[in-house]
Amino acid sequence: MNRHTPNDTGSELATSLASIVGPAGVTTAPEDLEPHVQDWRGRFKGRAACLVRPASTAEVAAVIGHLAARGVPVVPQGGNTSLCGGATPDESGQAVVLSLSRMNRIRSVDAFDNLITVESGCILERVQEAAQEVGRLFPLSLAAEGTCQIGGNISTNAGGTAVLRYGMTRDLVLGLEVVLPSGEVLSGPRGLRKDNTGYDLKQLFIGAEGTLGVITAATLKLFPRPREVITAMAAVADLAAAVKLLRHLQEDAGDNVITFELISDVALDLVLQLLPGHAPPFPRTPPFSVLLEVASFWRGFSAADAVQDSLARASEAGLCDDAVVARDDAQAQALWRIREDVPEAERRSGTAIKHDVSVRPGLIPTFVDATRRAVEAVLPGAGIILFGHLGDGSLHLNVVPPGLGKARVAPEIHARVWRAVHDVVTAHEGSISAEHGIGQLKRDELWHYRAALDRRLMRAIKDSFDPRGLMNPGKVV
Amino acid sequence: MNRHTPNDTGSELATSLASIVGPAGVTTAPEDLEPHVQDWRGRFKGRAACLVRPASTAEVAAVIGHLAARGVPVVPQGGNTSLCGGATPDESGQAVVLSLSRMNRIRSVDAFDNLITVESGCILERVQEAAQEVGRLFPLSLAAEGTCQIGGNISTNAGGTAVLRYGMTRDLVLGLEVVLPSGEVLSGPRGLRKDNTGYDLKQLFIGAEGTLGVITAATLKLFPRPREVITAMAAVADLAAAVKLLRHLQEDAGDNVITFELISDVALDLVLQLLPGHAPPFPRTPPFSVLLEVASFWRGFSAADAVQDSLARASEAGLCDDAVVARDDAQAQALWRIREDVPEAERRSGTAIKHDVSVRPGLIPTFVDATRRAVEAVLPGAGIILFGHLGDGSLHLNVVPPGLGKARVAPEIHARVWRAVHDVVTAHEGSISAEHGIGQLKRDELWHYRAALDRRLMRAIKDSFDPRGLMNPGKVV
Repeated sequence: MNRHTPNDTGSELATSLASIVGPAGVTTAPEDLEPHVQDWRGRFKGRAACLVRPASTAEVAAVIGHLAARGVPVVPQGGNTSLCGGATPDESGQAVVLSLSRMNRIRSVDAFDNLITVESGCILERVQEAAQEVGRLFPLSLAAEGTCQIGGNISTNAGGTAVLRYGMTRDLVLGLEVVLPSGEVLSGPRGLRKDNTGYDLKQLFIGAEGTLGVITAATLKLFPRPREVITAMAAVADLAAAVKLLRHLQEDAGDNVITFELISDVALDLVLQLLPGHAPPFPRTPPFSVLLEVASFWRGFSAADAVQDSLARASEAGLCDDAVVARDDAQAQALWRIREDVPEAERRSGTAIKHDVSVRPGLIPTFVDATRRAVEAVLPGAGIILFGHLGDGSLHLNVVPPGLGKARVAPEIHARVWRAVHDVVTAHEGSISAEHGIGQLKRDELWHYRAALDRRLMRAIKDSFDPRGLMNPGKVV
Repeated sequence: MNRHTPNDTGSELATSLASIVGPAGVTTAPEDLEPHVQDWRGRFKGRAACLVRPASTAEVAAVIGHLAARGVPVVPQGGNTSLCGGATPDESGQAVVLSLSRMNRIRSVDAFDNLITVESGCILERVQEAAQEVGRLFPLSLAAEGTCQIGGNISTNAGGTAVLRYGMTRDLVLGLEVVLPSGEVLSGPRGLRKDNTGYDLKQLFIGAEGTLGVITAATLKLFPRPREVITAMAAVADLAAAVKLLRHLQEDAGDNVITFELISDVALDLVLQLLPGHAPPFPRTPPFSVLLEVASFWRGFSAADAVQDSLARASEAGLCDDAVVARDDAQAQALWRIREDVPEAERRSGTAIKHDVSVRPGLIPTFVDATRRAVEAVLPGAGIILFGHLGDGSLHLNVVPPGLGKARVAPEIHARVWRAVHDVVTAHEGSISAEHGIGQLKRDELWHYRAALDRRLMRAIKDSFDPRGLMNPGKVV
C-alpha cells in the first residue's frame, strides 16, 4: 500500500495517518481503494480520501482523534457485506474509509464462563470456529458469515437463522470497547451477566451502524453446544399452516426449535433450475417448504424419534403434507444448501425489488395476502418470491416485475413498490428493516415512517455523541 | 384521597393535578403520603409535595407536562420495593411522587406469538399468572414478585433467579411506551423479534431508574412452559466445587439448567433456627448448599432420571457430597422456601452490611477468598453470609460485624467495608451493583468507580433527555 497519488488532498492526509498506522496501514491508490468505496452488490459507489487500516485499538483511537481534529469524516468498514450501503462512502471523496480488517485477534476464549472476547475485524465464521474449538456454540449465523466481520454484525445488530432461539446480535453482547468520535476509548469489555451500574452505554452502539463511534472489540456470550441437531424440511400448503406448524413443534419441543426458515415454491424452483447439485426435496414442489432445526442438549436422549413423531402428528393435523428428516450430516447440509442458495438463484433469475421486513408471525398470512394485493395494484402481473426467517416473523419478500429479465427497475417503479409494501408492513405494525439495517439505502424510508418524536430523539443522540456529524455521514440519521 | 392540608404548597399543586387525574388520583394527606415517601426497609425517608396516581398513559403525559411547565421534580414509583432508595423522594418536599399503581391493566396476551402487553403498574406476579393462564412462561422471578411492579422491574433491569437461562429484564422487553420529561409519549409497544430501524431508543429507559422518563407500558416476550421442572438441592464442600457442579450439569443438560442458587452454611442455619416450618435438607449443614432447577420441554421425555444420574456422577467426581431431588411439588416448594427465607432470617438475626455484586462465575472462589481477607483487615472478626444467584455470578454478600446484634452499623464502618469489598469486586472485573441498581444508595459509589468518560456520557444522556433534571433527581446520575 502507501502508493500515494501526487496532488491529491488524500495524499497529505495519508502521510499523516501513516505516522500513526505505519506505511502499510494506509493507501490512496485507486486500485486499493476500489473494493472499499463500493458495496459488494454494486448498488452504491462513492469515493474516499484514503483507506486506513489500523491494527490496534490505540491506532483506531489515534486515527479517529487525528481525523476529528481536522474535521475529516470517517466511514468504518468491516467485511463490507452491507445490503444497505452502510459501509460505502459518499461521492464527495472527503471521507476516510477505516477498515477494521487488521484488528482480527481473538483476545480470549473462556469455555468455563462461556465468554469470548474478539476484536471487531474477526470474521464471523472465525468466531464460530473459536467457540466450537472449546466445545461451545456462538449462535449468530447468516449468509455472509464467511466474509462479514463481527464488528459489522454488532454495528448492524445482525439477525440470521438462529434468532428464534438465541435472539439478535444485541442479545449476544456482554461488553463493548468503542472508540468515540472524539478519539476517546470507552470501557473495556467485561463478561458480566448481571451488571446494573448506571446507563448501559454499550446498547447505544449496537445497531447504530458506526454513526456514534467505532466498535473495536466485544465480549460475547457462548452457549452449550447441542448434542444433536435434527434437520428437516416440511412441505406446507399455505402460510397459515406454516406458522401453525412452528407452534405445534414448540408444543412438543419447547424452545429447542432453533431454526424455522421459509422457502416459497418460486424460490425452490429457481434453486433447482438455476443452480447445480440440488436434488428436489419433494416429488412435487409444494407451495411452501420449511427448513427446520430442533436441538437436543440432554445426555442420553435422542430427539430424532421425537421430531419424526411430532412431524407425523403435524401431518395428521393437516399442518404439513410431507416431511424429510435428514438421516445424516450430508443430508442436513443438502437441505441447508437449498435454503442458502435462494438469494443466488434469485440473483441469476433477474431483477427484483427486495424487501427485508418483519411482522408478528401470526400476522404473516394476512400480511402476505395484503402485500400481494398492494403490489398487484402498483405493478400488475408482478411475481413475489418469499423466503426467510419465518420463526421470528422476518421475511425477504422480493417483487419480480413482469417481463423485466435482467434490466434495472426504473427508480420510480422501485420507489412506488417499496412504498406500497412498506405501507402494508406499517399497517401490520411491522418493521421496514427487520435485520439488514438502514445504511443509506433506507434512510429516507426510515425518516418517512418513524414518528417525529423518534426522529428527534435519534437526532439528539447523534448530535450529543457526534456533534459535527463526522461518523459514517449519510447513514441512518 | 384529595384531603388537602391547608397552607401547603403541595395543596395548590394537588388541586391543579386533580383537574387531570380526578380528585381520587391525588393526595397531600400525610397518612396517604407516608408509605410513599420512604423505602420499605426504612433506610430512606423523604418528603413530597403530593402523591399523584394517574390511571392512563394520557394522564401520565398530562401530569408530567403539567409538572415540567412548573419546574416540579417527579419521582416515579412502582411497588416501592427498591433496595437502593430508587423510588424515594429527597427531603426537600419539592417533588411529586407519581405512583403507577392504577395503571395495572394487562392490555393483551398473545399465546400464539408469545407476547404480553402490560401497563407498568402490573404486579410482576400478575404478569406471570397471565402468561401461565395461556400456557406460557414469563420467566422473570424475584423475591418481591408479589409486590413489585413490572414498570419498576424494567426501570431497574431486574435480575432474579432465572437469569442464567432467560437473561435480565432487558432481554425480555420487545417494546416500551414511555412518557418523556417533556410529557410527550414515545412509541407504542410493538412485538417484533427483528426490527433494525434506527437507534433502539427503548434500551435507554431500561435500567435508567426513571431518570430519563416514565415507562407506562411494555410488550414482553413469553416463552414455552417447561413440561417438567426438576428441583434439587446439593450439598457442596466449597465454592470451586459449586461452580464446577454447574458446568457439569450444563454438560449433561445444556441450557436446560435454569436456576442455580447458592446458600452458605451460616445462611442455611439462620433459616433453620429463626424461621418456623423448615426441615434440614441434609443431616449436617454443608459449607454450601445449591438449589437448582433443570427444565425439560420435550413431549415424552422425563428429565428426573437424567438429573438424578447427573448428580450421582457429580458426586462420584467429588463435585457434591449429597443431593436431594424433590419428588413432588410440595418437596420442591419446601426447598425453595429455604432459599426464599434467607433474607428474612438474616434480617431477624441482626445487622449486616449488604453487597449486591457480581463477577464471572469462574472467579467466584478467588473473589470470595480475597473479600474475606479484605473484610477481616477492615473489621476483624466479622462474619460473611453468602447467598444468591451463583449461576450468573451474582452474589448477595453480607458482612456481619462482630458482636453488634441489632444496633445500626456506624456509617464510617459501613463505608469502609463497602469500599473494601467494592475494591475487591473491581479488581476482579466485577459489578458493584449486579441487580438492585443504583438509586440513591449507591450513587456516590457508582461515581467513584465508573471511569470519567463513562460518567461524562451518562451525564450527557441525562442532560439531553432531561435538561432541567426533573426526573427522579438524586438517583443514578
